[in-house]
Amino acid sequence: MIRLLLFDVFGTLVDWRTGVAREARAVLEPLGIATDWLGLADAWRDRYQPAMQEVRMGRIAYTKLDALHRRNLDVVLTKLGLERVAEEAREELTLAWHRLDAWPDVPPALSRLRERFFLAPCSNANISLMVDLARRNGLAWDAIAGAELARDYKPKPAVYLTACAAFDCRPDEALMVAAHSSDLAAAAAAGLRTAFIARPRERPNAETGPSGPVDFTASDLGALADELLAREPAAC
Amino acid sequence: MIRLLLFDVFGTLVDWRTGVAREARAVLEPLGIATDWLGLADAWRDRYQPAMQEVRMGRIAYTKLDALHRRNLDVVLTKLGLERVAEEAREELTLAWHRLDAWPDVPPALSRLRERFFLAPCSNANISLMVDLARRNGLAWDAIAGAELARDYKPKPAVYLTACAAFDCRPDEALMVAAHSSDLAAAAAAGLRTAFIARPRERPNAETGPSGPVDFTASDLGALADELLAREPAAC
Repeated sequence: MIRLLLFDVFGTLVDWRTGVAREARAVLEPLGIATDWLGLADAWRDRYQPAMQEVRMGRIAYTKLDALHRRNLDVVLTKLGLERVAEEAREELTLAWHRLDAWPDVPPALSRLRERFFLAPCSNANISLMVDLARRNGLAWDAIAGAELARDYKPKPAVYLTACAAFDCRPDEALMVAAHSSDLAAAAAAGLRTAFIARPRERPNAETGPSGPVDFTASDLGALADELLAREPAAC
Repeated sequence: MIRLLLFDVFGTLVDWRTGVAREARAVLEPLGIATDWLGLADAWRDRYQPAMQEVRMGRIAYTKLDALHRRNLDVVLTKLGLERVAEEAREELTLAWHRLDAWPDVPPALSRLRERFFLAPCSNANISLMVDLARRNGLAWDAIAGAELARDYKPKPAVYLTACAAFDCRPDEALMVAAHSSDLAAAAAAGLRTAFIARPRERPNAETGPSGPVDFTASDLGALADELLAREPAAC
């Protein structure tokens, strides 16, 4: 029986790429800057995993994703020849990740799933970022699980297991939903059930299907909701 | 400027005493047990602070309130001569704390406050308990802050400060709301602003007013909402 649905957020629930590009343009274009906005988003995102790796390996203490995004932004701006962007604009730009839009299928599907299951994000983002995305997109979470609760980063097993423990769930009572096979493989290794959602528009070369075994595969969250609501009893 | 409202829960938002008495009766009366149900609730609650003190002092690792409630229940049942209550009924009884009703003014006041402020419980209860109370009473939290996020118990300053940090708030941008002066004194010492709500029906000898300085005093949460909404700008 599935009691808890846990969700990856960047890419799986929200469109980070066009959102970061849009927000970066909104902050930088008034300063007379023109650049490849999607390229800036991609370059920023490419530094995401290496920055978290410092925490995962214990080389630095747990540091919020906002702070890692801020440090990575400095490197990206330098690479793009944009050293002249002032501190205040960099702070504002870092909040681009708080202003992303959900894929259109997400809000209605979560509303339907909430009638039957406990719902929480299990993202590497910090709590305030998740709160802002929830407010912006009308996502009614039961609690904000993820990296800040576990004080470590996915795919470390503690992040998935801390989320389950917060809901008094055994790992096999939780379903991790993501558009990324590596996230699902780590969740499965920790004992969770897994659902792959295809997000072909996340970025160039996005995964179109899971690269390993998963419990569910769906074309979007609406389709996953249809399948779960047809077969699982109410857990809440 | 106030951005975040943090709430004590037991006594301040929910009526633990008559709720625990009702739930205990529902579990134990079918087993042929009769006792003073409100007395059982009071005796259980009286063991609350000493149990948390073991964690605060570092004598035991952080342990969820559900687990502390479960241990305290054993002591209470023995004192009441109810050793015959079986393990399964004890587990069920421990969930009494997940099934409490909000004071009637709470859900509408939180809905109004949510239009203007970020809202989170800052309780010593664990996350699953807060989730169950939120579902039961229709409380729309932005996130569940409190003891489980901080892995320590109020009135330790880390609990209040971890809640503020999760919302990227300075302590003086957060308002702690409680019916207990000791909670508010600790929040104020950590730099938060404070609001006392009177809950004369919480238990015999409940506080009718704050015993020290606070920023706001209100007769209930509806009255506090009136005052905050009249004077504070929107933070979200």
